[in-house]
Amino acid sequence: MKNSLFQQIPAVLPAELVETLCQAEYVRIERIVSRGHASPPDFWYDQEWHEFVLLVSGRARLAFADGTPCVELEPGDWLDIPAHKQHRVAWTDPQQDTVWLAAHYR
Amino acid sequence: MKNSLFQQIPAVLPAELVETLCQAEYVRIERIVSRGHASPPDFWYDQEWHEFVLLVSGRARLAFADGTPCVELEPGDWLDIPAHKQHRVAWTDPQQDTVWLAAHYR
Repeated sequence: MKNSLFQQIPAVLPAELVETLCQAEYVRIERIVSRGHASPPDFWYDQEWHEFVLLVSGRARLAFADGTPCVELEPGDWLDIPAHKQHRVAWTDPQQDTVWLAAHYR
Repeated sequence: MKNSLFQQIPAVLPAELVETLCQAEYVRIERIVSRGHASPPDFWYDQEWHEFVLLVSGRARLAFADGTPCVELEPGDWLDIPAHKQHRVAWTDPQQDTVWLAAHYR
């Protein structure tokens, strides 16, 4: 019945791994695994839904299009990104897996 | 803009700490901190909404009324508890804080 965010991570990760863990009409919960991946330069996420995101392990930096200062994330850090607040993953640690839990909701 | 699940935990915790981090009409995301707390004997949660729950730190054991075997949880473990699946917290580690992230949704 239980699962682990730290298991079943592929040995090779050419791109960020995004998997839906559960979902309903107005919520979608994902595990994301990054291994040094970042958003392409000048790419911004511009999402219809709000996103609660928790950094579970690893290390990352998020950037925002509206001038909000970059946010450095370590394990246990979370933020709630309102819909249409444009953001990108500026950096994730290449030396370890960064595991995120994201809850997209409206 | 960011917050940490591991900060602002009271030194004294007479009861389990439950705080809403964000919510919308069909979702409520909570941080729960347990310090050896467990549900009262013979008490079962019987919830209207589904609950995705992640153990972020610490250690815990959940029990279920329907005969589902107990689940031992360590950091990174998660489960999705359907609405009305009766469950209780049978045990949390008294030697450390157990931090949970719960997303209640329908």
